[in-house]
Amino acid sequence: MTSQMEDKLQDECGVFGCVAASNCTTPVDVANIISIGLIGLQHRGQESAGIVTNNASIDDGMRVHKGMGLVSAVFNPIILKQLDGNLGIGHTRYSTQGKSEIINCQPFVVDTKYGKIAVAHNGELVNKSKLRRDVLDRGVGLSTCSDSELITQLLCLPLDSEKSLEPDWTGRLRHLMLRTPASYSLVLLHGGAIYAARDPFGNRPLCIGRLEGDVGGKSPDTVGWIVSSESCVFQSTGAAYIGDVQPGQVVKVTNTGVTYTTAVNSGQSAFCIFEYVYFARPDSIFEGQTVYDVRRRCGAQLAREFPVDADVISTVPESATPAAFGFSRESGIPYDEVLAKNRYIGRTFIQPSTRMRKLAVEKKFGVLVENVRGKRIVVVDDSIVRGNTMGSIIRMLRSGGAAEVHVRIASPPVKNPCYMGINIPTPKELLANKLNLEETTKFLGADSLGYLSVKGLLSCVTSGRGKLVENGHSPETKSNGSCGTGHCVACLTGEYPVQLEW
Amino acid sequence: MTSQMEDKLQDECGVFGCVAASNCTTPVDVANIISIGLIGLQHRGQESAGIVTNNASIDDGMRVHKGMGLVSAVFNPIILKQLDGNLGIGHTRYSTQGKSEIINCQPFVVDTKYGKIAVAHNGELVNKSKLRRDVLDRGVGLSTCSDSELITQLLCLPLDSEKSLEPDWTGRLRHLMLRTPASYSLVLLHGGAIYAARDPFGNRPLCIGRLEGDVGGKSPDTVGWIVSSESCVFQSTGAAYIGDVQPGQVVKVTNTGVTYTTAVNSGQSAFCIFEYVYFARPDSIFEGQTVYDVRRRCGAQLAREFPVDADVISTVPESATPAAFGFSRESGIPYDEVLAKNRYIGRTFIQPSTRMRKLAVEKKFGVLVENVRGKRIVVVDDSIVRGNTMGSIIRMLRSGGAAEVHVRIASPPVKNPCYMGINIPTPKELLANKLNLEETTKFLGADSLGYLSVKGLLSCVTSGRGKLVENGHSPETKSNGSCGTGHCVACLTGEYPVQLEW
Amino acid sequence: MTSQMEDKLQDECGVFGCVAASNCTTPVDVANIISIGLIGLQHRGQESAGIVTNNASIDDGMRVHKGMGLVSAVFNPIILKQLDGNLGIGHTRYSTQGKSEIINCQPFVVDTKYGKIAVAHNGELVNKSKLRRDVLDRGVGLSTCSDSELITQLLCLPLDSEKSLEPDWTGRLRHLMLRTPASYSLVLLHGGAIYAARDPFGNRPLCIGRLEGDVGGKSPDTVGWIVSSESCVFQSTGAAYIGDVQPGQVVKVTNTGVTYTTAVNSGQSAFCIFEYVYFARPDSIFEGQTVYDVRRRCGAQLAREFPVDADVISTVPESATPAAFGFSRESGIPYDEVLAKNRYIGRTFIQPSTRMRKLAVEKKFGVLVENVRGKRIVVVDDSIVRGNTMGSIIRMLRSGGAAEVHVRIASPPVKNPCYMGINIPTPKELLANKLNLEETTKFLGADSLGYLSVKGLLSCVTSGRGKLVENGHSPETKSNGSCGTGHCVACLTGEYPVQLEW
Amino acid sequence: MTSQMEDKLQDECGVFGCVAASNCTTPVDVANIISIGLIGLQHRGQESAGIVTNNASIDDGMRVHKGMGLVSAVFNPIILKQLDGNLGIGHTRYSTQGKSEIINCQPFVVDTKYGKIAVAHNGELVNKSKLRRDVLDRGVGLSTCSDSELITQLLCLPLDSEKSLEPDWTGRLRHLMLRTPASYSLVLLHGGAIYAARDPFGNRPLCIGRLEGDVGGKSPDTVGWIVSSESCVFQSTGAAYIGDVQPGQVVKVTNTGVTYTTAVNSGQSAFCIFEYVYFARPDSIFEGQTVYDVRRRCGAQLAREFPVDADVISTVPESATPAAFGFSRESGIPYDEVLAKNRYIGRTFIQPSTRMRKLAVEKKFGVLVENVRGKRIVVVDDSIVRGNTMGSIIRMLRSGGAAEVHVRIASPPVKNPCYMGINIPTPKELLANKLNLEETTKFLGADSLGYLSVKGLLSCVTSGRGKLVENGHSPETKSNGSCGTGHCVACLTGEYPVQLEW
Repeated sequence: MTSQMEDKLQDECGVFGCVAASNCTTPVDVANIISIGLIGLQHRGQESAGIVTNNASIDDGMRVHKGMGLVSAVFNPIILKQLDGNLGIGHTRYSTQGKSEIINCQPFVVDTKYGKIAVAHNGELVNKSKLRRDVLDRGVGLSTCSDSELITQLLCLPLDSEKSLEPDWTGRLRHLMLRTPASYSLVLLHGGAIYAARDPFGNRPLCIGRLEGDVGGKSPDTVGWIVSSESCVFQSTGAAYIGDVQPGQVVKVTNTGVTYTTAVNSGQSAFCIFEYVYFARPDSIFEGQTVYDVRRRCGAQLAREFPVDADVISTVPESATPAAFGFSRESGIPYDEVLAKNRYIGRTFIQPSTRMRKLAVEKKFGVLVENVRGKRIVVVDDSIVRGNTMGSIIRMLRSGGAAEVHVRIASPPVKNPCYMGINIPTPKELLANKLNLEETTKFLGADSLGYLSVKGLLSCVTSGRGKLVENGHSPETKSNGSCGTGHCVACLTGEYPVQLEW
Repeated sequence: MTSQMEDKLQDECGVFGCVAASNCTTPVDVANIISIGLIGLQHRGQESAGIVTNNASIDDGMRVHKGMGLVSAVFNPIILKQLDGNLGIGHTRYSTQGKSEIINCQPFVVDTKYGKIAVAHNGELVNKSKLRRDVLDRGVGLSTCSDSELITQLLCLPLDSEKSLEPDWTGRLRHLMLRTPASYSLVLLHGGAIYAARDPFGNRPLCIGRLEGDVGGKSPDTVGWIVSSESCVFQSTGAAYIGDVQPGQVVKVTNTGVTYTTAVNSGQSAFCIFEYVYFARPDSIFEGQTVYDVRRRCGAQLAREFPVDADVISTVPESATPAAFGFSRESGIPYDEVLAKNRYIGRTFIQPSTRMRKLAVEKKFGVLVENVRGKRIVVVDDSIVRGNTMGSIIRMLRSGGAAEVHVRIASPPVKNPCYMGINIPTPKELLANKLNLEETTKFLGADSLGYLSVKGLLSCVTSGRGKLVENGHSPETKSNGSCGTGHCVACLTGEYPVQLEW
Repeated sequence: MTSQMEDKLQDECGVFGCVAASNCTTPVDVANIISIGLIGLQHRGQESAGIVTNNASIDDGMRVHKGMGLVSAVFNPIILKQLDGNLGIGHTRYSTQGKSEIINCQPFVVDTKYGKIAVAHNGELVNKSKLRRDVLDRGVGLSTCSDSELITQLLCLPLDSEKSLEPDWTGRLRHLMLRTPASYSLVLLHGGAIYAARDPFGNRPLCIGRLEGDVGGKSPDTVGWIVSSESCVFQSTGAAYIGDVQPGQVVKVTNTGVTYTTAVNSGQSAFCIFEYVYFARPDSIFEGQTVYDVRRRCGAQLAREFPVDADVISTVPESATPAAFGFSRESGIPYDEVLAKNRYIGRTFIQPSTRMRKLAVEKKFGVLVENVRGKRIVVVDDSIVRGNTMGSIIRMLRSGGAAEVHVRIASPPVKNPCYMGINIPTPKELLANKLNLEETTKFLGADSLGYLSVKGLLSCVTSGRGKLVENGHSPETKSNGSCGTGHCVACLTGEYPVQLEW
Repeated sequence: MTSQMEDKLQDECGVFGCVAASNCTTPVDVANIISIGLIGLQHRGQESAGIVTNNASIDDGMRVHKGMGLVSAVFNPIILKQLDGNLGIGHTRYSTQGKSEIINCQPFVVDTKYGKIAVAHNGELVNKSKLRRDVLDRGVGLSTCSDSELITQLLCLPLDSEKSLEPDWTGRLRHLMLRTPASYSLVLLHGGAIYAARDPFGNRPLCIGRLEGDVGGKSPDTVGWIVSSESCVFQSTGAAYIGDVQPGQVVKVTNTGVTYTTAVNSGQSAFCIFEYVYFARPDSIFEGQTVYDVRRRCGAQLAREFPVDADVISTVPESATPAAFGFSRESGIPYDEVLAKNRYIGRTFIQPSTRMRKLAVEKKFGVLVENVRGKRIVVVDDSIVRGNTMGSIIRMLRSGGAAEVHVRIASPPVKNPCYMGINIPTPKELLANKLNLEETTKFLGADSLGYLSVKGLLSCVTSGRGKLVENGHSPETKSNGSCGTGHCVACLTGEYPVQLEW
């Protein structure tokens, strides 16, 4: 489904890493675990996938496999078997920078003075134009226009401080952070170590887990570690959540354990608010709370901000279901389904005739007539970007016999571009920049319309933080982020956490 | 997802037909509408897809395109453009008979004395062995082992009664019905007409709709007609529901309208109960009621038959959601989600290692911890076949902190094979034949377990019939079906509607 | 290379069969031998390929694999391994009848009252329209418009004379010969036997060989038998030539040996003359002589019929080389190469610009300047059909500095259509129907032009017959063929061997 | 066909460039011409192909298309249309360095400080290990292990002498030549210019041609220029030969014309002798003579060095045909064909069974019995490397009835590795290192065996030089090459032209 049809913002990537412990009795199939991790991160990017593994004990070069399409199309058991090794990294991609081509697939692998390194990242470099000029001026040719290659070549440059024969990757990552403040969560593979790093603003998520030997057993052995954009993959890989990588932190993982280094202390944080609103899987944990819980609180808050007299609370399946449940519980109005979804609609080809274009939404959904006829319905959605879908939904419900249709959006209007990796339409295309609330209501054909306030959203995001803390790695509340809560809400408010230099 | 992983019964096919009206001002793109219809029937079969069109005014031969895979993979705008014509039929397939090969894809097209015919069907011939022998004895070679070719060659044989130069397709279909009582819902394309027919027992669904000129407008023009396995596709193709094809009925559709003929009056009906339980899309209408409504009633009935003291009613996403809502509403216990689903798991390759096999279910679902921890949970599912998934779900919920897990199944235990097109495992593999209720409860690790009774299921199916009747084509209640209600419940009770001859 | 570019007639198919002997000590890999045989017959058709095998001792159904493209693209070791069995047949196809689609690939396999049969053939049924009507009138639907399916369904019909439970395939083949006189060389596989048959006119070639145990050894064991369109594959499969299948003969091959039956004795023969002129591989043996030898004699005869004073005899690489050698030896003028061929030109995409179209022949050939400059050159070619290539060749030679260019064609002008399987352009497109000899010479830009006479051609074909006879299966000279020599020269003279009925 | 089966040395690449003249009235389709050029160079590499074009007037970035396989598989008219522009370069590859993967396909394109450049080359850097270390030490990551990327990154490094804003590509190429003496013939594309360069030893061929407006006309307009590994493509692209790029020369081509710069004057030359012996197409011109002519002289010289009393001179089709003609003419013994070649054998899958492996050569060739039986045959071949084919050929001829078989090789024995881009087996695998002449004769089963002497080969190569000189760009005879004639014969003598440093 293209962004255009989904009417949703698009995140760009998922990163994953895995290291087997040296003393584990059960052998850990690293490539297999990475593939499962990437399948669990598939919602962050469906365009291409790649895995790179290394066998630190043999060290005869990296195994690399990358391809266009879903993880399940790019990999199979035969390919995974060839990706042997005791550590590795992986990536799934939605392209914001660089064309959709195999050459732009991550992880990006290059040979260096110290042997091969592989880099995979999520995010976008805010000052990439300047960085690119610097690299080219040094006489380095760049074979892609991707940020990954740029980051990789920046990391290849020796530091003045390096005296030893071994490169100081933590130092080089610190140097990278000093040259570019945002936005990247990355994993770097070299020799027998993986380095996981988040930019000083912590704009993109990244977390660490511990692989358990006897899956689900009591106090199980540690057989390895994983690094992942989201924690939702931990259950499926048999891992326990350790904690988030902190903004500006570099975490080195080897077969003997995990080492944390604060490379840059920015004293602030700007975690992307849309990870909570739409991007992340609901069972992922950020800042000690599940995304599901935040979304339900947003729905409840929305019910308080824009109450409505209605018979049914419902949603457009299926990302806004938790918000709709929250709205239902807070308002006391029962939740019910009003639309059945066609699970097989997929990336269908665009229909050329006018008649068929009119029916684009009808292909995706069918009205459940008995639940709609004569009812006053509240449709809760998580966000509206261009507003190209909701109008059709409302028409379908009305033609199914709905008495009233009220729209409630569990996030504020999107008004500004993102420079940190989110694919936002141009300001002119954003519905909130074209019409005011009253005009939008009319445009959609709704009986009423309400957006969650920025303040309301931030209160929902902060009120549950730390509920699920484990292992003492409690997330600290950063104080001077762009909104004071440590979250980036630039696309909603226009206040950017970083001064841009082009 | 294979049947094995899904632990669900599998239906085999969807059939679709479309005829443009002669006097329509708006041109109707027949191949386009068929492709949308097939996408809407994709849940009935994902193995292959095919479309055949004819241009009755030119009559220079049929256009055929078939291929392995999803409709969206087999067709694209260029191919659809080549499939011009003013009428056509289509098919999506899940293979029960015949290997999964391109040669077995439907519609099956042959040249006859009267020009080409194309046939697509859903169902399985109960006496196919005898029919096959008859055809081979006549000296006809059969190039596949599919029922479609068998039906087609049976229809090619001239009737003694045929005097005219034109074949009497309705008569031939009647002749077919006399030779084989079940199970087939089929569409036949010849020249400028489509013939839609259901076997005398009406075992598989088939319904008729009217294409509207100004989609969604008031009293719109009729620009054509469609025939479809399920009515859920009517909204997406811009059609209004006319009614079900009746058991033993042949419906001829040309560019001037629709003609109904009762070919065989069996005086009874045996509509497959699993169309309600699991196969059909919830927004489809059978016998004047939506499937969603039946499923919700089943959930409510289940709550009456097996009440339980609990904190949360939930389900394994997503087919049993209506039943869970029904259970929740009847019991007064709130519904909530306990599992997040990975939408991208798809047909993933099987993981070889033991560790990974253990985690197969974890790849598909993530526990929503806050909704589970310390709660007494009721998991409602629509059916259990082999029971290979529910045990893992319960373990996941318990390791997520659930206090109790109670399982409620909104259909009776499946105990017997189906000879009418449903892919049921061998009796030995069926959980209900291996363990009694108590043993099953223990096997699953549940705190309690309850199945809906056959009587309860049938009462839910019959109590809402006719609620949504339109256009006077009211479905009549058949009296002497296998259970007296006109439904086939042989897989549940062992009482088959048809005496089998091999 | 398309027929259009090649300016050559196109033959349509190669057929092959293999049966392992029952008592052979060395196991014979039947599918492997068939694949090698088909590669050796690839020059007869490059559009699709197929192999069907049977394991007569197990008899659990045929193994079938067919696909579009070259043999080497359709088959690989894994597929061949799945095609186990102790006998089988294969086919390579150039489509004259039936579209270029997978459904039309041979062998054609159908189930009959007596189990599966597979049929592969080379040729075209001269009265196919009538035969098709007969089959359709019987109430048999035909799923393709290929002759193969027609032949197969004709063979499925039981004979009145058949009393036993086993079908009389030889009798049925005789019946087929009585209904259609030409043109087909076919192999039929059923159970543990292969039946090889040539039509009563012997229009297409077919021969039998004996597989040797110790390849190339003295008096080696017989480990099986093969049937092939041409004998050129015998060396590559380790077989010795037994003899041609005679016109109207049915040869049954089982694991115990070969049985010959004269099914129809037409008393005449009409073997396609173009098998000698162009179609067959030069190392194939027909009527006891190699094709190479015939072609060389044609070149020599041409030198006698149209002598010329020149410096160099040459050819357009590479099919007419033997004729050019014959011309050189007869005339005493030395042979030399004047063109280098690009072996990789293959099926290149058509170039759109005028400039590039002009250079189409230049892409295929480069002039060898030193051999051309100032020389009087004779270019010998085997045939001219449309005449679209020779003109460009002559221009290239002249621009390379040739003093004179004389063209000699080692066959008579093609003037009439073929109804027996050869793809001849419409009469209007044939150069010989558009221009007389003088006009053609001018059109081509040649200094002189000569075609071999029909009489000369036939004398070259008959003068060496029987030189290589082995094993006592000496080919008999048929007396009353269309030209008295037992060869079909209808495309040259317009005298057809069969009275056509449509 | 793999090198192993062919028993031939393998060259690695073909490079091509094209620039349209600014004032040409006929538009020149640059991408089309490059594709035709690459098809004409396909014999130099069939593994991958790529084209890069630039539109110098718009300068909005390069168009790149690369893919695995033959030129005709990688490109089609739609792709060529997208490669618009008025200049471009192309490449076909046989991989010696770097794995056979899409990432290693050439041309290699990188962005530099001055915009994108593209580089394609033929050859291998003799000191690549040192060069690679230098680049990595500078902190540049290398994403492939190909020489192309290494050359490209070396060319990206600014020169100290560069003052202007524009890069001095000729200067940088000179700098490259000073750092690595061999072996490379390369084309570099930047902005509106192509730079063609040959290493100081001229080890690999490269030549320049002029595109003619009215193809084949008298004194036609110049509409552009081409650069090509070989001149055999000139006819097919409508170009006239200007001359070879000289060793150490840089030729800059823009839309106004061609500029020649002698970057490095090594005073010697080491042109690969195997370009004459086997690699190049016979119609290509090197040093003012056709390859065909050299090969024929080699055959004649061989007849003088190793005369033999025989009935027939022949060859293994088809690369040694000119040498066989030369032998025949010199000896007075007639030339005739003894083997028919299967043109479709292609890259067939390897046959697993022993029986089939024995018949590997029989699959490729069929004996022409009449030309062999009772004859004393001389088989002339151009080279023997491993000797894995000739033995089988001789066995085939003997079993076809040959009285005697004498082998004559038109080049000396290959005994030493090549460090300049030719894929030579390890010394141990070379037949000439395993057996002496007598042993080899016995091993092959020949009646006698003779190799051309090094001295004889060099005399044949030098005696015709300059015969075809045009336009005043006469090739100068270099005096102090490895053998005094300006040719590299290291693989034959072990005397390398360059002192190797690793």
